[in-house]
Amino acid sequence: MPKVEVCLSPQLIHLFDLKGKIAVVVDILRATTCMTTGIAHGVAEIKPVATLEECRKLKGMGYFTAAERDGQKVDGFDIGNSPFSYMEDKFKGNKVATTTTNGTLAITKSTDADEVIVGSFLNLSTVAGYLKSQGKDVVIHCAGWKGNYSLEDTLFAGVLYELLQQDFESDSDAAHSALTIYKAAKGKLLETVLESSHAKRLEKHNIIKDIEFCVKQDVYDVIPVLKNGSLVKK
Amino acid sequence: MPKVEVCLSPQLIHLFDLKGKIAVVVDILRATTCMTTGIAHGVAEIKPVATLEECRKLKGMGYFTAAERDGQKVDGFDIGNSPFSYMEDKFKGNKVATTTTNGTLAITKSTDADEVIVGSFLNLSTVAGYLKSQGKDVVIHCAGWKGNYSLEDTLFAGVLYELLQQDFESDSDAAHSALTIYKAAKGKLLETVLESSHAKRLEKHNIIKDIEFCVKQDVYDVIPVLKNGSLVKK
Repeated sequence: MPKVEVCLSPQLIHLFDLKGKIAVVVDILRATTCMTTGIAHGVAEIKPVATLEECRKLKGMGYFTAAERDGQKVDGFDIGNSPFSYMEDKFKGNKVATTTTNGTLAITKSTDADEVIVGSFLNLSTVAGYLKSQGKDVVIHCAGWKGNYSLEDTLFAGVLYELLQQDFESDSDAAHSALTIYKAAKGKLLETVLESSHAKRLEKHNIIKDIEFCVKQDVYDVIPVLKNGSLVKK
Repeated sequence: MPKVEVCLSPQLIHLFDLKGKIAVVVDILRATTCMTTGIAHGVAEIKPVATLEECRKLKGMGYFTAAERDGQKVDGFDIGNSPFSYMEDKFKGNKVATTTTNGTLAITKSTDADEVIVGSFLNLSTVAGYLKSQGKDVVIHCAGWKGNYSLEDTLFAGVLYELLQQDFESDSDAAHSALTIYKAAKGKLLETVLESSHAKRLEKHNIIKDIEFCVKQDVYDVIPVLKNGSLVKK
C-alpha cells in the first residue's frame, strides 16, 4: 500500500524524501483556500512568489497581484489574501501572482515531489479521490505559521488522512496525531479553528467571514497543480 | 498569568524566545527518562554531549559513559540508553557522560532559557509543582525523533500542560493540540505509546520493559537541572 506522511511545518520538510511522491500543500488560513477558490472561479494561473518585490515586478508582466503579510493586504497590490477576492470577474482567464506569509513558502519547498497539488477543505474530497486514483506515496505539507505548527492545517491533514486510511498506510506519528486532533474537532470544526492562534490573529482584522468560508468542505471539485512554477487547473 | 508554549521539535526551537523562561526538555523514549532515573538513584552528574567522540573522551576524565544511536547501545561505552542501567549501584555518587540520538540535542538547544530542567512521566507532578512555584513562562521542548515530531514527547507536553492549565495561559496551538492528543490517550497511555513509530523502532530491539517503565507516572520526585553543562539534582 502507498504511504501517507504528514509534515507539520515547512521548517521540517527537509526531513522528508519527496522524490516519487505527491505533495499536498495546505494553508487553510488562507493561501491554499484562495488558490482553490481562484482556480475554481476560472483564474488561468496563480503564481506563488516568495517576496513582495518579485510580486510587484510581475504586475507589469501581465499579472494581477495579491500580497499579504501578517494577515493583512499590502498596499500597492490588487488584492490581499481573502478567498472572496479571487471570485472577482476581472481575474477570470487571467493570471495572478501572489505572495503570502506561509503558503507560498510551503509550495516552493515542496518541488522535489513528483507533483505538487494544493489542498483545502474546499476541495477535500476531490483531492482525496485524486490521491487514491494515483496510488503514489503522499506527503501532506502543512504551511503552519511563520515556520511553526498551526492547528488549522493539521486539522486538514487529519481529515485527509481519514479519507485515505482505507487505501494508504502510515507510520507517521504526525499523521496519527493529526487524525486524533481532527476527530476531537468533528462537528465543531469552525469553533475549533476559531480557537486557533491564527484565527485569533485574523479576527483582529475583522475577517470572520473569511474563516467561515475557509472551513467549508467540498465546495469545489478542482485541484490546483504546480506546473512551471504556477498553479493551474489539473 | 505566565505562559506555556510547546515546541514540537528541536528543529523548531529557534522560533521560540527562551529568554526569561524555563525550558522543560522531554525525550520520553528514553533520554530524559534515563536522566530522571539516574538523578533519582543518586548519580551525581549527567553530562549530555552531542557526539560519540566527545563522550568517549570523557571516559578518561572520571566519567562513566552512556551512548545510544538509533535505539541501540554503542560498542565501547559502559551503558546504552536504558533507564534500568542508571539504577546500577556503581553510578551512585559518580558522573555519567551521555550521548543519544535526540535528547541531548534538545538540551543543548535550550540553553538560552533562564533554566533548563528535564521532564519525564516519572517526575511529572514534581515538575508541574516546581513550574507553578516559579510562575515563570515555560517552553516544553519535545526532543522528537531525528528532528521530526514524535507522539510520546507530545503526550508528555499534553499532560504537563493539563496540570499547569489553572495557573498558566497559552496561545500556543501546539500546547492545545498536545492536550487534545493526551486526552485521547488517557487511560491507555502505554497502548498509545506502543503505537508510536518510535516504540515500534525500539520493539525491534526487544526493550518493551523499557517502554513500560518510560510511561509510569510519578515514580520519582527529583528534577534534573542543567548547571555548567551537566544535569544535577535540583
